Amino acid sequence: MRFCQAFMYELWRNIGPDQDSPAGDVGVGGREIGYLYGAYKKLAREHSTGALTGKSYGWGGSLIRPEATGFGAIYYVERMVKEKGDKMEGKRIALSGFGNVAWGAATKAVELGAKVVAISGPDGVCEIPDGITKEMIDYMLDMRASNRNKVEDMATKFPGKAKFTAGKKAWIVKCDIAMPCAFQNELAEEDAKMLLENGVKYVAEVSNMGCQPAAIAAIQAAKVPFGPGKAVNAGGVATSGLEICQNAGHINWTAPEVDQKLHKIMNDIYDMCVEHGRMADGTINYVKGANIAGFMRVAKAMVAQGII
Amino acid sequence: MRFCQAFMYELWRNIGPDQDSPAGDVGVGGREIGYLYGAYKKLAREHSTGALTGKSYGWGGSLIRPEATGFGAIYYVERMVKEKGDKMEGKRIALSGFGNVAWGAATKAVELGAKVVAISGPDGVCEIPDGITKEMIDYMLDMRASNRNKVEDMATKFPGKAKFTAGKKAWIVKCDIAMPCAFQNELAEEDAKMLLENGVKYVAEVSNMGCQPAAIAAIQAAKVPFGPGKAVNAGGVATSGLEICQNAGHINWTAPEVDQKLHKIMNDIYDMCVEHGRMADGTINYVKGANIAGFMRVAKAMVAQGII
Amino acid sequence: MRFCQAFMYELWRNIGPDQDSPAGDVGVGGREIGYLYGAYKKLAREHSTGALTGKSYGWGGSLIRPEATGFGAIYYVERMVKEKGDKMEGKRIALSGFGNVAWGAATKAVELGAKVVAISGPDGVCEIPDGITKEMIDYMLDMRASNRNKVEDMATKFPGKAKFTAGKKAWIVKCDIAMPCAFQNELAEEDAKMLLENGVKYVAEVSNMGCQPAAIAAIQAAKVPFGPGKAVNAGGVATSGLEICQNAGHINWTAPEVDQKLHKIMNDIYDMCVEHGRMADGTINYVKGANIAGFMRVAKAMVAQGII
Amino acid sequence: MRFCQAFMYELWRNIGPDQDSPAGDVGVGGREIGYLYGAYKKLAREHSTGALTGKSYGWGGSLIRPEATGFGAIYYVERMVKEKGDKMEGKRIALSGFGNVAWGAATKAVELGAKVVAISGPDGVCEIPDGITKEMIDYMLDMRASNRNKVEDMATKFPGKAKFTAGKKAWIVKCDIAMPCAFQNELAEEDAKMLLENGVKYVAEVSNMGCQPAAIAAIQAAKVPFGPGKAVNAGGVATSGLEICQNAGHINWTAPEVDQKLHKIMNDIYDMCVEHGRMADGTINYVKGANIAGFMRVAKAMVAQGII
Amino acid sequence: MRFCQAFMYELWRNIGPDQDSPAGDVGVGGREIGYLYGAYKKLAREHSTGALTGKSYGWGGSLIRPEATGFGAIYYVERMVKEKGDKMEGKRIALSGFGNVAWGAATKAVELGAKVVAISGPDGVCEIPDGITKEMIDYMLDMRASNRNKVEDMATKFPGKAKFTAGKKAWIVKCDIAMPCAFQNELAEEDAKMLLENGVKYVAEVSNMGCQPAAIAAIQAAKVPFGPGKAVNAGGVATSGLEICQNAGHINWTAPEVDQKLHKIMNDIYDMCVEHGRMADGTINYVKGANIAGFMRVAKAMVAQGII
Amino acid sequence: MRFCQAFMYELWRNIGPDQDSPAGDVGVGGREIGYLYGAYKKLAREHSTGALTGKSYGWGGSLIRPEATGFGAIYYVERMVKEKGDKMEGKRIALSGFGNVAWGAATKAVELGAKVVAISGPDGVCEIPDGITKEMIDYMLDMRASNRNKVEDMATKFPGKAKFTAGKKAWIVKCDIAMPCAFQNELAEEDAKMLLENGVKYVAEVSNMGCQPAAIAAIQAAKVPFGPGKAVNAGGVATSGLEICQNAGHINWTAPEVDQKLHKIMNDIYDMCVEHGRMADGTINYVKGANIAGFMRVAKAMVAQGII
Repeated sequence: MRFCQAFMYELWRNIGPDQDSPAGDVGVGGREIGYLYGAYKKLAREHSTGALTGKSYGWGGSLIRPEATGFGAIYYVERMVKEKGDKMEGKRIALSGFGNVAWGAATKAVELGAKVVAISGPDGVCEIPDGITKEMIDYMLDMRASNRNKVEDMATKFPGKAKFTAGKKAWIVKCDIAMPCAFQNELAEEDAKMLLENGVKYVAEVSNMGCQPAAIAAIQAAKVPFGPGKAVNAGGVATSGLEICQNAGHINWTAPEVDQKLHKIMNDIYDMCVEHGRMADGTINYVKGANIAGFMRVAKAMVAQGII
Repeated sequence: MRFCQAFMYELWRNIGPDQDSPAGDVGVGGREIGYLYGAYKKLAREHSTGALTGKSYGWGGSLIRPEATGFGAIYYVERMVKEKGDKMEGKRIALSGFGNVAWGAATKAVELGAKVVAISGPDGVCEIPDGITKEMIDYMLDMRASNRNKVEDMATKFPGKAKFTAGKKAWIVKCDIAMPCAFQNELAEEDAKMLLENGVKYVAEVSNMGCQPAAIAAIQAAKVPFGPGKAVNAGGVATSGLEICQNAGHINWTAPEVDQKLHKIMNDIYDMCVEHGRMADGTINYVKGANIAGFMRVAKAMVAQGII
Repeated sequence: MRFCQAFMYELWRNIGPDQDSPAGDVGVGGREIGYLYGAYKKLAREHSTGALTGKSYGWGGSLIRPEATGFGAIYYVERMVKEKGDKMEGKRIALSGFGNVAWGAATKAVELGAKVVAISGPDGVCEIPDGITKEMIDYMLDMRASNRNKVEDMATKFPGKAKFTAGKKAWIVKCDIAMPCAFQNELAEEDAKMLLENGVKYVAEVSNMGCQPAAIAAIQAAKVPFGPGKAVNAGGVATSGLEICQNAGHINWTAPEVDQKLHKIMNDIYDMCVEHGRMADGTINYVKGANIAGFMRVAKAMVAQGII
Repeated sequence: MRFCQAFMYELWRNIGPDQDSPAGDVGVGGREIGYLYGAYKKLAREHSTGALTGKSYGWGGSLIRPEATGFGAIYYVERMVKEKGDKMEGKRIALSGFGNVAWGAATKAVELGAKVVAISGPDGVCEIPDGITKEMIDYMLDMRASNRNKVEDMATKFPGKAKFTAGKKAWIVKCDIAMPCAFQNELAEEDAKMLLENGVKYVAEVSNMGCQPAAIAAIQAAKVPFGPGKAVNAGGVATSGLEICQNAGHINWTAPEVDQKLHKIMNDIYDMCVEHGRMADGTINYVKGANIAGFMRVAKAMVAQGII
Repeated sequence: MRFCQAFMYELWRNIGPDQDSPAGDVGVGGREIGYLYGAYKKLAREHSTGALTGKSYGWGGSLIRPEATGFGAIYYVERMVKEKGDKMEGKRIALSGFGNVAWGAATKAVELGAKVVAISGPDGVCEIPDGITKEMIDYMLDMRASNRNKVEDMATKFPGKAKFTAGKKAWIVKCDIAMPCAFQNELAEEDAKMLLENGVKYVAEVSNMGCQPAAIAAIQAAKVPFGPGKAVNAGGVATSGLEICQNAGHINWTAPEVDQKLHKIMNDIYDMCVEHGRMADGTINYVKGANIAGFMRVAKAMVAQGII
Repeated sequence: MRFCQAFMYELWRNIGPDQDSPAGDVGVGGREIGYLYGAYKKLAREHSTGALTGKSYGWGGSLIRPEATGFGAIYYVERMVKEKGDKMEGKRIALSGFGNVAWGAATKAVELGAKVVAISGPDGVCEIPDGITKEMIDYMLDMRASNRNKVEDMATKFPGKAKFTAGKKAWIVKCDIAMPCAFQNELAEEDAKMLLENGVKYVAEVSNMGCQPAAIAAIQAAKVPFGPGKAVNAGGVATSGLEICQNAGHINWTAPEVDQKLHKIMNDIYDMCVEHGRMADGTINYVKGANIAGFMRVAKAMVAQGII
């Protein structure tokens, strides 16, 4: 608490709803945002504003913010799948991690009819042959809250349904869609090769730079569509934006309202990736598309708003 | 006007839409808010903002703001009645006062099918055996505007329908629901006893601290549900909040939109009172519930936002 | 760009979303607003705000803003026509100019079933006997973008449909409704007389002070309804207001949403003109009505907000 | 008072000790500065600051401020006289006016040993053959305070010493030094010719643009040194600057301290006029010198501080 | 420290060198001012400013500030003595207290040749027949720093020179000048009578309202000059003003410079008391003089600066 | 100019006379400070303030600021010499560099009677056996302004007086006092050894970290007093502080006034180094003294002002 307050004493003049709005990241969750927000409120004499996002629902936070990165990733993947004339129903998805992001992705994936067949942790991987259930998804929150940081708990809790293998990654499980949801560089070249051998059809990076460059190269070389993190995981930051909008109007949108706006944003992002990533052979290079789309947006704004 | 301006010269740096937003109270109505707002606008160089509430509709005021306290009180009472498996239709309601609050309460009560059988003034009480009519409700505004401050006018205007008794309070009229809407300490222990003798089923305090402690004790001792002012009359301040919301988005909600949001707020308040006020015997102590709910809300925010 | 920036260095402390929000005017279009906004954003450290209107859609601009003046003018005219028990369908409209305003007016007029039979430019007038088509309306944008500033291009592009007469104004074309959409003083007394001889039924000034006083006098003397520019062309500024609203809530309304709100505003303006402009003989003097309505609005606010 | 306050409500955000500091001018004396300062203090919550100059001594005003323009003018004239190898002692000086400026000039002139032989008013001129005395100088303040605006009073008060001639200007009196101290354009070509015929040796303009262009031309043609108002009367504004300095340090300088700094400033101004006004024949064109010196100062600052 | 910081979080926007500058008082010494100043500096991002006075010399405090109240009181008393044609040399002075104020008064009294024959504490009085010495004055600081709060220590430390009497006040000691320097209401009517019986010639109140009304009445009835605290103890606040001046110029004055300015301020205060307090019989009523002088100063400023 | 302006657009809200006041450093001289100041003035609407130091004299710069580092270094050295019971007269001083710092040091050294026997440049060293003369010191400014960056010019200009040796440092010249005035790490261990062999008596580092650690170790091992840069070169920053003081009071001190205050500051710094650097054997370790003095100053302020 004291650390958050000391940090805010230096920061408060440089943030604000129309200026700059930080959100939490690794190690800064709702508790820390609460302390930061309390200090900001006192120093700036402003309340209920979007100077910070990821706030508690009681003082300006947005519904669906916790699920947003996972939901958004699945929306993006759904479009990748449709691009191939394929559909989400019945697809087998391997997720790494069992935290916030994996939890959100699993929730939405199940909602769309897909099967989540693997989650993982620092201790190993949990294979779930018949797909994760609602009870198992809810139990992910308990696992996270326990601070034990072990995915093996899932197998213990649901014997027969989930099978734990120590020391292995999620990528050993045969799947149609692979989604790294844990941390940087978690998917190496050999992991990519195993996924390809097992017939993976789509790879979507959800963690920031979760795939090593060699892994990406291997996936793309195999003509398997690869969605880069900068596009796939944009749902989190986008929903921070939606939180700012709600704060601006002093209102709270319902969960379906936020979800629908998030869905639209992910679709727009996907469309821009396609617009700039369509190759001569008709396939989409999502990496190229995302890079060019991002560059164009900034460049056009700079030209239009003048160079000071 | 000069007083309002001088007051604002000292106050303006300490209020604002995201900081603190005063509303009028006894002796400060729309006219004074107009002068205060004009001075604020000039000093702060800001217009159409929620730095003050209770503004005229022409520059940022909210529809339903005048009716809000009365509407909200009836919404709360409706829930108290339903809690008993009972319904509003046909209920006989005695209101004290004939001003803004009583007018709003009468309007909504009639809308929900209840009968308002008494209103009162400093000069006495007006009994209305068959229930107040739309014409009589409209006439309350004329009575208020006349500055004569006499409830006897109602009996004069509607002979046969309304019967005036000088020097008495509304609590002498036999009723199912008693709602003090006038001023502090207006309902004494002897009033409570008379109400109970006459078979009152619900008492809801609308004026701030309208019931004396001994009166509350008597009502609760008789197992008659008692709604405390801090919960029952929250609709006024809540609608000031809705006015700030509309100002934030530079929009005006329609009357039904405001009314619906007000209704939801009153329901939420009622639910919190029940959550914290349910006794071992299954009955609700609304006083206890409101106190605990209010305390918990502040305490949780303090803990979550840190202690500076 | 440098000029816009230098201008903003002096201006920025005196504008803001709740303070004063300039919009472009003659010679200040989207490009200049972009430069002004870029400078404002840097100096004030605020983004996405309504401190300026007429912004690009990408950073806070409103849909329908370009069409707003023209749409609004037609909405006003539609009410003038209905006032006479008449209807827009089939009405022949002569517009002067072929720029933003005329383009918007033509679009909405055609949508309501009217026929635009003349547009004009500095080089002359283009008669379109069968009424302007969607292709011709779209071509107006090309004409404007070409910077050739010649209305003759329309006749060249659509031979047989449009007939060009050099050196003449739109007012030589027989029409039911005349709408000057170009510049100040463009409609002189002799133009008014020719319109009246040709049986004009309604004249609505869209350009700022587009009709010379003697022309207005002649039109009113002939008992032909005349809508003054201060009311008829209010749609542009009104939609700047709607842009500020959207900025306040950090949202974008869809085109139909903006159009509907614009329509309501124009109807309200029309109603106020009628309220204050109804003459003893039952006809409407729109000039008088607009003047009184405007004066009353300011005067009432001054009285209500106090004199400092 | 109300006018000063209303003026300050609009101005206060745009002045300040380090920003812009207005001083009084025609019609704005100590009384008005007091009202302006009181309003500024309340609005800006700042006291004893140099946001305004010409304040009362009790809240930040400077000693010698009232005398400053007259003192400064005599300091400048003294240098003009010395430039010719001449001295002030015994010089006959004709002053126009009998207000603040003339009073200050007379005081300092007598202190330096010169004879003030004429003062004037709207009613005529008062010749004082043996030179003005301390009693007469003090009486000028009474004349001004009487609001009678008549210089004849001096002759009435001091019969034998001062001789009044109605309807004439000070320039009919034979003198060595002529100093217009009253108002714009007060010294015409024919006045200049009379002065030259009477053997005037120096002319120093103290009022703003007190000499008509033809008068200046005649004086310069006769090789009589002419000091332009922009340099000669700079002592007033300069002492406003000294008031700001004292406010900055929250101190009051003694009268001799202020006088000494004023003297130094006038010497510096004189030196710059000479530096830039020295002609090929060794004489000084003070008009040219003052113009060039002023231009160079601004131009050099602009170049050195960069062009934004 | 935490208390000072919490206090400043609320206060900082409302103080400043040109706005309002608090100083310490009972229970708020240099340590607390240090904490308050540290918090102010961090929150306001301003350093070395006069937003607070009584600061440590290392960051903007003034020399002589600790001694100022005592020095100023003696300067005032010196004028009271001279008014009677008398002189300070050899005068016997009884002081109450042995803290900051008494220490400053003793220092300056001895410097002017007077004899301090009594100091006192909560435990009793210390008589010093031959007058306090420099060593004894220095020892007062040790006594204060010891926190033992006993004046008896002086007698223990300097046996033979100082004689302690328990439970008595300083007013039992025969003296020419009595100066209460401790706390409110410390000098009662019976004390005044004893002083008068012992031949006291002057009484000067240094503590805030140190003399009870009946005591003042008795002293004035005996025609003994009485200096009221509002004038006599002004040296402390005045030197806070000098601290602000030094902060404004970012300079430190030497001790003699501060002492000289303090002396001039006390002389000015004394002169104003005399101007407004001279009675018909030629004597001075210092109470009346101080009251009228203070009132006139505020009233004149209010009139001159206008009524907003 | 554009670079300076762009830099200031980002910086201006974070500097100010009571907040933070940058000064120039390598590559940022008077020209750049002028551009920065011009941009600051425009953005902050403040002029003549101490938000930047090293300003031109025309708008708030201080006299002696250019000479300050060199003057201050010599003042420190003078105290080192006196500490040994020695005197400056006749001392032989070797300076490295020929820029601003060396020029200031040479000026003050000659004023105190010392002989500057070497200056140096990137091209080599210039030995001046009979000591530098006033003409040679003035010529250093020409050398610097020429941008040729060659010290050989001095030998060319003053043949017989100055002898150039290419590729060598100043430390080859036999001297009593060595003062590195050029750049970081310019004095290596072998240079120190040569200086010691040649009998150097004092070494004072003027450039920031001009001496390599091994060099300092060698000098201290030889019991030769070594003044560290953090103390010796403090005169530059100190005079920036004096510039801020002058800006605060809106005044300009004369050159002797600034020099005297600079001298006092250097003496205070020296005294603090001695206080904390006195060793058991009575000698002074200036490095230790400067480090401890600096630490204590910050630590004491932190404790006294509280930990937030």
